[in-house]
Parts: sequence; structure tokens; C-alpha cells
Amino acid sequence: MNVEDLKNKIIQGDRASLARGITLIESSNDRDQERALELLEMIPEHSQSWRLAITGAPGVGKSTFINQFGQYVASQGKKLAVLAIDPSSEKTGGSILGDKTRMGELSQLENVFIRPSPSLNYLGGVGERTFESILLCEAAGFDIVLVETVGVGQSEYRVSSMVDQVLLLIQPGLGDGLQGIKRGILEICDGLVVNKADGEGKKLALETQRQYQLALELLHGTEKSPWVKSLSSLSQEGFEEIFKKVDVYFHQKHDQILKRRCEQLKKFFYAWIKHNWEMKFRKEYLSKFEELETQIDSGQLGFSRLLSMGKSWLE
Amino acid sequence: MNVEDLKNKIIQGDRASLARGITLIESSNDRDQERALELLEMIPEHSQSWRLAITGAPGVGKSTFINQFGQYVASQGKKLAVLAIDPSSEKTGGSILGDKTRMGELSQLENVFIRPSPSLNYLGGVGERTFESILLCEAAGFDIVLVETVGVGQSEYRVSSMVDQVLLLIQPGLGDGLQGIKRGILEICDGLVVNKADGEGKKLALETQRQYQLALELLHGTEKSPWVKSLSSLSQEGFEEIFKKVDVYFHQKHDQILKRRCEQLKKFFYAWIKHNWEMKFRKEYLSKFEELETQIDSGQLGFSRLLSMGKSWLE
Repeated sequence: MNVEDLKNKIIQGDRASLARGITLIESSNDRDQERALELLEMIPEHSQSWRLAITGAPGVGKSTFINQFGQYVASQGKKLAVLAIDPSSEKTGGSILGDKTRMGELSQLENVFIRPSPSLNYLGGVGERTFESILLCEAAGFDIVLVETVGVGQSEYRVSSMVDQVLLLIQPGLGDGLQGIKRGILEICDGLVVNKADGEGKKLALETQRQYQLALELLHGTEKSPWVKSLSSLSQEGFEEIFKKVDVYFHQKHDQILKRRCEQLKKFFYAWIKHNWEMKFRKEYLSKFEELETQIDSGQLGFSRLLSMGKSWLE
Repeated sequence: MNVEDLKNKIIQGDRASLARGITLIESSNDRDQERALELLEMIPEHSQSWRLAITGAPGVGKSTFINQFGQYVASQGKKLAVLAIDPSSEKTGGSILGDKTRMGELSQLENVFIRPSPSLNYLGGVGERTFESILLCEAAGFDIVLVETVGVGQSEYRVSSMVDQVLLLIQPGLGDGLQGIKRGILEICDGLVVNKADGEGKKLALETQRQYQLALELLHGTEKSPWVKSLSSLSQEGFEEIFKKVDVYFHQKHDQILKRRCEQLKKFFYAWIKHNWEMKFRKEYLSKFEELETQIDSGQLGFSRLLSMGKSWLE
């Protein structure tokens, strides 16, 4: 399929084509990269989409939350795309966790697209092409794009430069250094969700909610403090409220969000062009450089001549 | 003075011109950089020079050692250049310690050239242009180039990629974690000098010498262990031996040294061309990029168009 056709199919909302588009974007093959760039040059942008990140320590229940919150979102008539960044499998370079088992019910729904992407070895722990994938999902007509982070290292910081709102998921539990959550994460999150407010756990969850509320107010001031909610996956309590919180934030702060997106776009573009510039360096010089090594080793090529040569390379 | 004349003067051994050449190399001015490159393209290389680094913790007596060892070296008919890397003064960007006070007697000698260079904010703690300065000193006919490191952070590692031999200077003193000397430094040094073996301190110095000898033999194996000597700046005892050690090393391992220089040259050239490639990026795109920012902020320039633009930049 040529890129133009692929673009049209994606814009029509064809999920298989969207998946194919993301695969193209994530490919490290040179030809694929060219085609991916062509594709990205053609897609329209949406200012009404929600870009959300779901973060939290590994094992806190991010997939379960997305599975259930996603169903609630879909029931509100929203088209939802989930970009689930899996910790890469060292061996295959692919995803080790399939979407089928983790978000089984959600993946059955008509209006939902789930894409597990490997995080590669990219330090941030967010797939290298997440930003482009978000935009492609929007071009395919998805109203909400949820990015699930791996929840380790720098991933939260990196993902916050790609989305409008960051939701931090935590388990009920008090004291003890706030579950080892780094202060930095509390600084960048826009909302905090205490999960497992079920049955006997409800009391602890509400207590945890109050404690974090206080901590966040101390950190941000009462006015600017992120919202804190608890939820029960069993009774579905809390999903509606969380949806509303996100919705209200989006509408009340829409100008701010658009401004944030401009900053993100600038950052992305700068990184993008710098990355490509470095790739160009590798392509142009790495093999040339290897050829020189033998001459250097044999003593034929010394400092001065090497500099003259380098100078001509750079012209 | 044009570059050709400057080169000729340097090759004739004119010390003022050598100093001027190094200033040119260290300048961050674009025009100076071009002239510096021209100069470096013209200089001859020497395979018989000694390139030595003197390292050790701050306050251990590196300058005093160089002042005295340098005089011994000069008395052997050798022309000596000293590149003393000073911790930069934040305010002026220049050197905070003058050579006059630190190496007063040495600086009076005919055959000696002393150049204090700021270490800038370069992480390694060795002046950014040390490698080029070493070669310029050699072109000026100096037989021995001594590089004094600041003795903190990564400077020792960085300097070891520019010289043939690294001498580590330590004070007499036993136990207590080997004066906080990092194992890594012991791994890269080629010779170890225990100073202040004077009068009553002599016993402790010799004991320290033995202890380090043992530690180094454990680390490197008896065969490959760096030499260890102690010296007295007062009685001049030890200078002759140290000079001989360096001399023997240089002659016995000359092939190895030439090989090491090839590796250093490759590393230098790769870093050099990469640095210049990045500078080219800044020159070509930074102002372009700033012009775009207004358009991005006003929403006139979105993702797709930005990529198209970037693509054309890279062509």
C-alpha cells in the first residue's frame, strides 16, 4: 500500500491501517523511516483530543485501571486509543506482554484501539516514537489517547512532555515514604488516583487519598494542587468522577493545554532534527572513519593531514 | 602575523609565538578557530617526544614536583614544556594561579616553556585543547611535554588519553584507604612517586612506597606493575631515578607507545569531527529554529508542516 492510501485509510479510522502506520513509524529500517515521515507530513491535527498518561510504580495496577477506565470512557461515546509501552524483551526487541491478556475486555470494544509498543532501550522507558504515535491515533479520529508508562526510571518525566495530563496511580497504603514515589512525580502529575478502594480496603484508600491530598497541597499550594480521587474496580465507583475531573481540566485549561502542546512540539522538533542530524553524521562519516583507521594504525596518516581531511569533510 | 609566519616562528622554537599559538587554539572566537586549524594543519609531528601527565590529589605538591623535576630534566639537556591546567576562575574564565609563583625557578630557564591554561568548564578538568597544545609544543621542538592535571574528578582518565605515561604523585602516609586514591587511578598510572621523603619523613615515605608497590603488584601482577619511587625535593634524591624510569619505559615500550598514540589520535579525531558536526548544527539551525518558534507559538506551524520543513533542512 502506498503512503497516500495508508493515510486515507487511517483518517477513515481503519484500525489495521493505524496499526500498520505505527509499525512503520517504529521501524528502524531506512526505507520505512522515509515512508513514515511522508505519512506524518500528511496527517491532520486535532486540538480537541485528550492526551493522557497513566503512570505509577510497576505492579500498581495500571493495566487493570486502563482496562476498566477505558470501558467507562468508551461507554461515554468516546473513541479511545491506548498506547501501552511494554518493557522490552531483550531477546526479541518486541513486547513481552500482549494486550489481549492485560486488557481483554477493553480490546473487544468497537471504539477502542490498543497498541502495545516495545520501549526499546530508550532510556526514558517510553517508546521512542510515542509522540508520533499519539498524533497518528488522533488523525485516525480517536478522541482520547492514553499512554501507559512502564513506571520506572525517567519514563514519567519523558511522557509528561508528550501529553496534556499525567495521572499517577497509587495503591492504598500510608506512611513509609509515600510508597517510594519520587517528589518529582508528584510535581508533574495533574491527577492522582488511589485504586483498590474495595470492600475492607476502602477505609485505607480514603485515608491514603486524604494524606496525598495534604502532601500535594503542601507541594503545589491549595489552588494549584492536582486532584486526588480513589476508585474501586469492583464496584466501578470513582470512574465517573475521574472522567469528569479530566474533562473539566481539559475545558477549563484549554488555552494552557494548547500552549503546553506548542512547547512540546518545539521540544519534539528540536530533538527530532538533532537526532536526524546525528544520524546523518553516522551515515556520512562512520564508514569513512573506519577506512581511515588502517591508515592511522600504519602511521601513514598523522595529526595534521587528518585535520585537513576532517576539514574537507565538514565543508 | 599570518598563520604561516606564526608556524615558522613556532618551529624555530620561539616561545612567545608558541604561547600565541596556544592562545589561538584555546580561543572560542570563530575566526581564531579557523586560524588555529590552519596552524595545526601545518605542524610537523615528533615520535621521539615524551608526553607525560602529572596527576595527584589537589595539594599533594604537583607544582613543586614539576618545578624541581623540570629543573633536573632541563639539566639533562632536554627542552621541557609544561602545560599546567588550572582550575578555572568562574569570573574571568582565566587561570587563577600564575606560573610565576608556582614554578618560579623553572620558569627562569632557557629551555623551559610553561603555559598555564584554564580548564574551562570542561568536565574532564583538562583544558579543552590540551591535545592540540601538546602537539604544538612538540612542533616547537620541546622534547618533553608535562601536563599537570587539576587532580579532581575525571581529569586523570581524560589526560591518560593524551599522553604516553601518567605519573601519580602521592604524599607519605599509610593505611586509611590509600589516601582516598581511586582504584581507577592506580590502574591507569605508569609510575607512582611518593614525595617528601625528606629528613624524618623519609622512613614513612619508604614505607608508603613499599605499601603501594605491593598494592600495585596485586592489581597489575608483578611483571606489569607500574614503578614506584620516592623522592626528596630538599636533597634532590630520587629525581635522577625517576627520570631514568621514564626514559627506560619510553625506549623499551616505544612500539607500544606509538600504538597508543594511534589509538589516541583516532579517538581525538572522532571527537573532533563530532564536535565540529555539532557546531555546524548549531550554526546552521539554531537561528532558523528560533525564527520558527513564534510561528509555532501562534499556532501557524503545526506538526506536519514542521516535519516537512525539517526534512528540507536536512537535505
